[in-house]
Amino acid sequence: MKDNNALRDLTMLMDLYEMTMSMGYFQSEMIDQIVYFDMFFRRTPDEGGMAIAAGLEQLIEYVENIHFTEQDIDYLRSVGINDEEFLDYVRNFRFNGDIWAVEEGTPVFPREPLVTVRANIIEAQMIETSLLVLINHQSLIATKSNRLVRAAQDIPVMEFGARRAQGADGAYLGARAAYIGGCIGTSNLMTGRDFGVPVFGTMAHSWIQLFDDEYEAFKAYATSYPATTSLLVDTYNTLKSGVPNAIRIFDEVVVPSGHRPLSIRLDSGDLAYLSKEARKMLDEAGYPDVKIIASNSIEEDTIKALRDQDAKIDVFGIGEKLITASSDAVFGGVYKLVAIEHKDGTIEPKIKISENVEKITTPHFKDLYRFYDKKSGKALADLLTIHGEEIDTSKPYELFDPVYTWKKTIVEDFEVKSLLVPIFKDGKCVYPKKSIEEIRAYREAEEARLWDGVKRIVHPHKYFVDFSLPLWNLKNALLTKYSDRGR
Amino acid sequence: MKDNNALRDLTMLMDLYEMTMSMGYFQSEMIDQIVYFDMFFRRTPDEGGMAIAAGLEQLIEYVENIHFTEQDIDYLRSVGINDEEFLDYVRNFRFNGDIWAVEEGTPVFPREPLVTVRANIIEAQMIETSLLVLINHQSLIATKSNRLVRAAQDIPVMEFGARRAQGADGAYLGARAAYIGGCIGTSNLMTGRDFGVPVFGTMAHSWIQLFDDEYEAFKAYATSYPATTSLLVDTYNTLKSGVPNAIRIFDEVVVPSGHRPLSIRLDSGDLAYLSKEARKMLDEAGYPDVKIIASNSIEEDTIKALRDQDAKIDVFGIGEKLITASSDAVFGGVYKLVAIEHKDGTIEPKIKISENVEKITTPHFKDLYRFYDKKSGKALADLLTIHGEEIDTSKPYELFDPVYTWKKTIVEDFEVKSLLVPIFKDGKCVYPKKSIEEIRAYREAEEARLWDGVKRIVHPHKYFVDFSLPLWNLKNALLTKYSDRGR
Repeated sequence: MKDNNALRDLTMLMDLYEMTMSMGYFQSEMIDQIVYFDMFFRRTPDEGGMAIAAGLEQLIEYVENIHFTEQDIDYLRSVGINDEEFLDYVRNFRFNGDIWAVEEGTPVFPREPLVTVRANIIEAQMIETSLLVLINHQSLIATKSNRLVRAAQDIPVMEFGARRAQGADGAYLGARAAYIGGCIGTSNLMTGRDFGVPVFGTMAHSWIQLFDDEYEAFKAYATSYPATTSLLVDTYNTLKSGVPNAIRIFDEVVVPSGHRPLSIRLDSGDLAYLSKEARKMLDEAGYPDVKIIASNSIEEDTIKALRDQDAKIDVFGIGEKLITASSDAVFGGVYKLVAIEHKDGTIEPKIKISENVEKITTPHFKDLYRFYDKKSGKALADLLTIHGEEIDTSKPYELFDPVYTWKKTIVEDFEVKSLLVPIFKDGKCVYPKKSIEEIRAYREAEEARLWDGVKRIVHPHKYFVDFSLPLWNLKNALLTKYSDRGR
Repeated sequence: MKDNNALRDLTMLMDLYEMTMSMGYFQSEMIDQIVYFDMFFRRTPDEGGMAIAAGLEQLIEYVENIHFTEQDIDYLRSVGINDEEFLDYVRNFRFNGDIWAVEEGTPVFPREPLVTVRANIIEAQMIETSLLVLINHQSLIATKSNRLVRAAQDIPVMEFGARRAQGADGAYLGARAAYIGGCIGTSNLMTGRDFGVPVFGTMAHSWIQLFDDEYEAFKAYATSYPATTSLLVDTYNTLKSGVPNAIRIFDEVVVPSGHRPLSIRLDSGDLAYLSKEARKMLDEAGYPDVKIIASNSIEEDTIKALRDQDAKIDVFGIGEKLITASSDAVFGGVYKLVAIEHKDGTIEPKIKISENVEKITTPHFKDLYRFYDKKSGKALADLLTIHGEEIDTSKPYELFDPVYTWKKTIVEDFEVKSLLVPIFKDGKCVYPKKSIEEIRAYREAEEARLWDGVKRIVHPHKYFVDFSLPLWNLKNALLTKYSDRGR
């Protein structure tokens, strides 16, 4: 489906320091140094209980496509990247390393690797900025969308925000992420065209204004779209003019054409009161099947308040607050060195210490497992291990809190899933492309396996992300080593 | 400079309803209806005194490039846009109308048109979504950048946020807008390459971690970049290790190579304390010219607090809080019908009423003037007029508040500038492209002409946006007419 126009060359979307460091590594003859980097986040937006990973498909496209043009080389030379031997290397640059990632749609938690990269230091460094942009952005919007969808419960949510997005990709890929997170579709045609996300729309107030009156405006619209008539009823007066005119048009144009009208849309005023009154009027006129769409600055708390007041809303249309995640507009993913690999194949873990305990990294090349209780099917905890540790599900396994280590639990009758999936091997993509429907269904299935407490919109229960004993011991040993340098 | 790869086809970045309305207009034989739309915003982000307009260059590129491919047509057919006569029209669609806009870098105020479009109704409708995305996004970031730069006063601000942006355009065009708003440059190479924005960078913590110790890491960097050495000093211990090692390397590598070191960067800890101590150490070691760059979650209030505590910071590096404008992440520009033009050339003003007074539009095809006091050179007020009204600067002019109309002032010895500049005439761009330096300099000059009160970061003085008497009378007459329909 994807138009070539939509696939942009993002190679140069990188911070200058990735390039200066790369030239430095090149000149220091460190180009063969194999390293491991983890991409992870430290805090869930909106103090939520979980995030939804997204953006992997675009990361794959970016990595496969990465290359520098002669124009890029000339530009680099002009900003001080002027070692011609290095520029020759840049000219032929490709990503030849390995990447593992959690699949799109996976519910994820702070400090878990969403992506792990194994490559030579220059390749690992060069992809940092774009990797972070692509995963951070879509994970932000998928997470926000999922919050809104959870708040709305059985009421579907549509993504309407293109015009207020932070740039074209904000709108385009944001709508993709919103669908993964649980929205039922978008207003955005470009996202519909390229990803197959369902598209929805009604009309603007300007449509109504351009006709002599509201009745004529509705009539013209229903005449063009008898099978999909959806009318915006708040231009003049929702209950005195909009809804009565809509019903008249349903009677006079839509039903005689052999169709049922789809919906009306409320975009201002007291949505609880108006929706209840409009519902009565529609029901009495014989249109109990016509849906009421509500838009206008809707967010988690508005949704809850409207539900509490028994508003008769069938669909929420959400604009700017979803597409910019304006309540908490940053997904703070970082990309940190966790290990280096020596020529003999041994892997040496690395830790980044910090005065701020939250900024200390989890060292080593790791695996990430999700434990599920076999009986309930629910997720119990996630476990980070050193890569290659075996989890024997036939025996009880002791999980413990990595900070309050006396908090322990022994799990039995469980199954595990390895969440980090191979994406690139030696620079070649080894991950089969998923359709947007598969990704969305996977998100739904995995979300269903979490306990309700974790999914609560406010004050969620904390999901456990534990360390295996070998990983805990390793981290502790490295911390002890560095604590010599003083507090 | 612009790489073709960077210019994307955004034609289909539109809400479905633009297309359904367009087909409706086509079928209602309204295709020759000429209309006027204004793009304006209602509220300045962060309760600021002004916004900075940006994004026009991208709007021009978009409008010049708009066209539908056969793939687009097929897709439209699949989502119900299935009138083959209309699809023939879409196949040959180009924008043939007129556009006026305020120039990029202009300080702007709520309810002023940033863009006015005159075109047939379909052309005017088709460009709505992308016009809004492009202007809203860059105006948001230019405005936020300008706030940060004003807060920092004489301390330069660099844009560092690519990795946390909302998508690739968020990073790419956000960095462009940040430069227009007053930042001195960006970390983002793609923006540097395509727009000539200066690029800056130092190193990541991973660079330090990859060497045996901090001293070796600094040494390798300075050896590769003796002329532009900038060292990140907070990996282990800023004052006990980072700064002393940096000074050692300046002495041993940079100075002997015939250069002066550029800077050190602090990225954690108490930036006030650390910068003062580091400053002393650098000065005592003979490096009073080496600059101290500070980064780490910096925003207007942090900048003020650091200045109050006399921090010795020479440059601020600002990441996520600038590139996402996270404190108020939406620029709420809207696009509203303000007039229609009859076949005989007469223009009929249109108003959109609303129960919410703030949502009532300002009708008619308008001009926007800025009044400057000749003596001080300062801007006095902006004035909206019906298009074609003459302002005679040789006579006193009475300005009055459009709500509290008894608040009047007579201005004398003034000059005016028309802020809405012709951009497209009959579909052809008539606006000469400006370099980013021209735009930035224009912003600086216009900003200097505003009184300090308007530019205050908190509780700014409200700048006057007034109506001419004819425009006020017209709006009032239309409101009176519609008020018949009840409150």
